[in-house]
Amino acid sequence: MPEPLFQKIALVGIGLVGSSLARVIRRERMAGTLSIATRRAETLARAQELGLGDEYFLDAAEAVRDADLVVISVPVGASGAVAAEIAAGLKPGAIVTDAGSTKTSVIREVTSFIPENVHFIPGHPIAGTEHSGPGAGFAELFEERWCILTPLPDTDAEAQAKLTRFWEGCGSRVDTMDPEHHDMVLAIVSHLPHIIAYNIVGTADDLEAVTKSEVIKYSASGFRDFTRLAASDPTMWRDVCLHNRDAILEMLARFSEDLSALQRAIRWGDGDKLFDLFTRTRDIRRSIIEAGQEVDVPDFGRHVLAHPKPESESA
Amino acid sequence: MPEPLFQKIALVGIGLVGSSLARVIRRERMAGTLSIATRRAETLARAQELGLGDEYFLDAAEAVRDADLVVISVPVGASGAVAAEIAAGLKPGAIVTDAGSTKTSVIREVTSFIPENVHFIPGHPIAGTEHSGPGAGFAELFEERWCILTPLPDTDAEAQAKLTRFWEGCGSRVDTMDPEHHDMVLAIVSHLPHIIAYNIVGTADDLEAVTKSEVIKYSASGFRDFTRLAASDPTMWRDVCLHNRDAILEMLARFSEDLSALQRAIRWGDGDKLFDLFTRTRDIRRSIIEAGQEVDVPDFGRHVLAHPKPESESA
Repeated sequence: MPEPLFQKIALVGIGLVGSSLARVIRRERMAGTLSIATRRAETLARAQELGLGDEYFLDAAEAVRDADLVVISVPVGASGAVAAEIAAGLKPGAIVTDAGSTKTSVIREVTSFIPENVHFIPGHPIAGTEHSGPGAGFAELFEERWCILTPLPDTDAEAQAKLTRFWEGCGSRVDTMDPEHHDMVLAIVSHLPHIIAYNIVGTADDLEAVTKSEVIKYSASGFRDFTRLAASDPTMWRDVCLHNRDAILEMLARFSEDLSALQRAIRWGDGDKLFDLFTRTRDIRRSIIEAGQEVDVPDFGRHVLAHPKPESESA
Repeated sequence: MPEPLFQKIALVGIGLVGSSLARVIRRERMAGTLSIATRRAETLARAQELGLGDEYFLDAAEAVRDADLVVISVPVGASGAVAAEIAAGLKPGAIVTDAGSTKTSVIREVTSFIPENVHFIPGHPIAGTEHSGPGAGFAELFEERWCILTPLPDTDAEAQAKLTRFWEGCGSRVDTMDPEHHDMVLAIVSHLPHIIAYNIVGTADDLEAVTKSEVIKYSASGFRDFTRLAASDPTMWRDVCLHNRDAILEMLARFSEDLSALQRAIRWGDGDKLFDLFTRTRDIRRSIIEAGQEVDVPDFGRHVLAHPKPESESA
């Protein structure tokens, strides 16, 4: 059997991302020992019940002792506290990375706690579902998804190459990016969509003229799509909003400006303007499917799942 | 073999809805003869190639001759013209219905053309995908989905009961509603979600600081969900915006007001307010799944489709 990529890996946080990592690390035999830490006893017991690791700790400092790779996957608002907690336990030469959705704030809050002889390389796997907790993870989560590393100016090239091999071992493709640019890109592709989804679901929930039961019954006409993102973990998304404020406000301003123009076109019956926008947006989905970032079936494949073998396929 | 529900059904329009109806009508043997009409020769040829009906016409007036049920499924902006075209050919006692996403405008534009001895009962099946055209339909489209009928004050009870049986034969559940209320409900559950999706995809497409290739690569972080609705038929959605203007503007105003409040909470770092909204919206998805209007798998089941038998299922 070949040597594992790391003698010991410690996962701090065992939610959707952490528990998916645990599963793929085991499947790909990437760690000699897999150590798991989380703050809540209940979550740790669940991880243990699922057999996700070799060792389990409520104290993250104990979990990271002797680890060659430490992956922090906690809501970004907790990154600084975790770094402070593990700092003294880190092994010289270890690689510390994270899976947070914002990067400048994580760098700001984590870096000062990391000892000189430890390699801190911030990262962000662009993968997830709306479910959370140790039971929600699965080994295939990262397959064909991008993982963005935002190395610091003094990042060790060898450590970065090893971390890249780790993510590739998880099935990811790996990109590097400037942290500020990462936060701008994610504000439009991830943060704004979540905020808009939360907002529209909130608006529908607040109406008086339309009942909640009507919203639910007729949701297949579009609304239900938004409820998926709006069912994401509230702590994670509160933290994202607080930690990527400037980029999010910039994207929100652009979105609102465009929406006002669209609203005006509707008010004044400008059919050509509407038709132009609605035509232009069609292509981008095709490109996403071609890039392997979306399933190539109508309606996200819901009908395939509901009716595995349509009788009328030949019609 | 039992008598079919209708001796002859005519479908005017053979896009996603029309062609799905054709397939389920055939599967359930609901028509003695199935007649198909569409304006474009190319679309008609495609329908014929797919063997969707028994008779094919470019002239809708010919298609509806002797039909006991006529289903108009065209973009709502074309409903009035279709009604004018078929009026003279309609058989006394026939039922005419439609599948349009707006109801007050269709009633306004269609009713005056319908002869006294013909039953016009407006309808709207709440079902669809982002694909369009005769090749996009499938017999299961209406299964477990609601179909809303908006009968007029003088609607014949027997004709309405027969139309209800027809939609139930397609697999739908049937509701009745006041047309104005229908338009208000659909503005929030369907029209606003589509407009918001078109808008955000347009905003992303217009950025200078983030490239289109970045939007595509990292779209799995949320954005790709919106591209599905934003890939819907431009003509259909232009017409919806023009024909349900008042209800849409009302919903847009509420959405924007709520978004401003959310934006303010982000600007001022009001974490509690964000957490409250993000928690409240979570429940509604669960209700939609329980109501049978959404698949009960994370990520719309994309991972199930991409990885049919996860190796790590037991982990």
